Amino acid sequence: MLRLGDALWVAAADMLVSGRHFKEWASPEDVGYKAVAANVSDVAAMGGVPRFVLASGGADDAETTLRCMDGVLEACEEFGAYPLGGDTTGAAALTVDVSILGQLAHAPVLRSGAHPGDLLAVTGELGASTAGLLALESGDAGPERLIHKHLRPGPRLVAGRAAARLGAHAMIDLSDGLASDVRHVCERSGVGCRIDLDLLPIAGDTREYLRSAGRDPEVLAATGGEDYELLVAASEEVVEALAAESEVPVTVIGEVTGEGVVFLRGGERVDDLSGWDHFAGV
Amino acid sequence: MLRLGDALWVAAADMLVSGRHFKEWASPEDVGYKAVAANVSDVAAMGGVPRFVLASGGADDAETTLRCMDGVLEACEEFGAYPLGGDTTGAAALTVDVSILGQLAHAPVLRSGAHPGDLLAVTGELGASTAGLLALESGDAGPERLIHKHLRPGPRLVAGRAAARLGAHAMIDLSDGLASDVRHVCERSGVGCRIDLDLLPIAGDTREYLRSAGRDPEVLAATGGEDYELLVAASEEVVEALAAESEVPVTVIGEVTGEGVVFLRGGERVDDLSGWDHFAGV
Repeated sequence: MLRLGDALWVAAADMLVSGRHFKEWASPEDVGYKAVAANVSDVAAMGGVPRFVLASGGADDAETTLRCMDGVLEACEEFGAYPLGGDTTGAAALTVDVSILGQLAHAPVLRSGAHPGDLLAVTGELGASTAGLLALESGDAGPERLIHKHLRPGPRLVAGRAAARLGAHAMIDLSDGLASDVRHVCERSGVGCRIDLDLLPIAGDTREYLRSAGRDPEVLAATGGEDYELLVAASEEVVEALAAESEVPVTVIGEVTGEGVVFLRGGERVDDLSGWDHFAGV
Repeated sequence: MLRLGDALWVAAADMLVSGRHFKEWASPEDVGYKAVAANVSDVAAMGGVPRFVLASGGADDAETTLRCMDGVLEACEEFGAYPLGGDTTGAAALTVDVSILGQLAHAPVLRSGAHPGDLLAVTGELGASTAGLLALESGDAGPERLIHKHLRPGPRLVAGRAAARLGAHAMIDLSDGLASDVRHVCERSGVGCRIDLDLLPIAGDTREYLRSAGRDPEVLAATGGEDYELLVAASEEVVEALAAESEVPVTVIGEVTGEGVVFLRGGERVDDLSGWDHFAGV
């Protein structure tokens, strides 16, 4: 966090590389757009407003590079960030790196402030991005909404700012997946948690697609990445107020405890849920 | 240029990719260092002070990525910039992208302010980086100083700030090469120039190595890139004052004219000097 003049700023960066973060099913515009969205999500998770973006891109031809930069500019427009500049270069594989500066109106919500007794809540829905990725990987054109959720995620800027203003104790954006990201919060905060998989907000089309693909919706919603929803640890009052202000539903999925990260399903403990490498896993 | 609070800021980004900007002769640390140095040079060319760096790097193994980031941190320490953060990822080819925020104490010196009658002066020396590159490409271990100039360039921060304070009219850092970069200044300023190749500051070891390699020292000093010296357009008084303050010698190499970019040698006009793709050219 930076204090420049009277304002507080946060900075983040995300690099996406062809073959690692996406494959040929993503257009260059999608890749540029998503790199910005991932950065905007980092700013949202601290309760900030995205302000300035620097973006560098490379591909093995100029047209692909410029199309990727068009996606960067489209996302800057969408999320209200000003593109300050950047660099373009030749590269064997399409690569884009985006840096962002976001401005804070309140003290930032960090990962380290969760207290035992806090509720754990998530914005929006889980598993849609992973379902979209599976559809892309298998060549299914069908579930367009899910594919769009994977290629063009929408960071939760309104909910993030509201959570900061209302006094949430800890917050993180779900980029690696709930099972992995909640561990980051618990480790940083020196606490544990109990999460009920039966409470995860999974949309009907996500559930249906995952089942048809022979996958377990709750497990993928807990372990799949790139939903870019927010996980918030806060008091019951704050979660209720947040639900009233958020641009998407807010769902309580568990609570913060003294120690141990526990996932429950039908009242039984589920083990071996962990961060999921969603490329290795497909 | 950004006004944040009471201060003026400038931003820049540079992406370096294996096989395009460097080959296996550069260590990962060199690559990270040079990416920061190139950005610092952009800040120097506006008369700014480097403040904050965001760096993302990728390679096909974690060790290479981390070694590259070590080079980034080493350069941040060297040039007084604070590393705010960044991202690391897997990538088939070593790739690093650095973004920088620099702070201005004075109105920035732009590329667009050159006037007919201004002197054109360069800091330091030209051609050393190209000589070092040729040595690296040919496997010559000999000219260590030249190789170091190529791998670990030193941006001209003191001269850049002095030029801004003293009122230079235009400035650019020589990253693409004098012949190319002076055209950028002339185009932006709507002027021409006359440059005398006989006046280019070429060190004895550079001259000697280039001759031994069968190359023309003046032509390579004018067309080779990555010297990261500053080219300044300013009045005679400002150039004299700059020479007294700069950390390296300042050499007058020509003057700004009404139109046309002209290179002279032994009083004769030299044509076909242009920006040099220094990988295609080796």
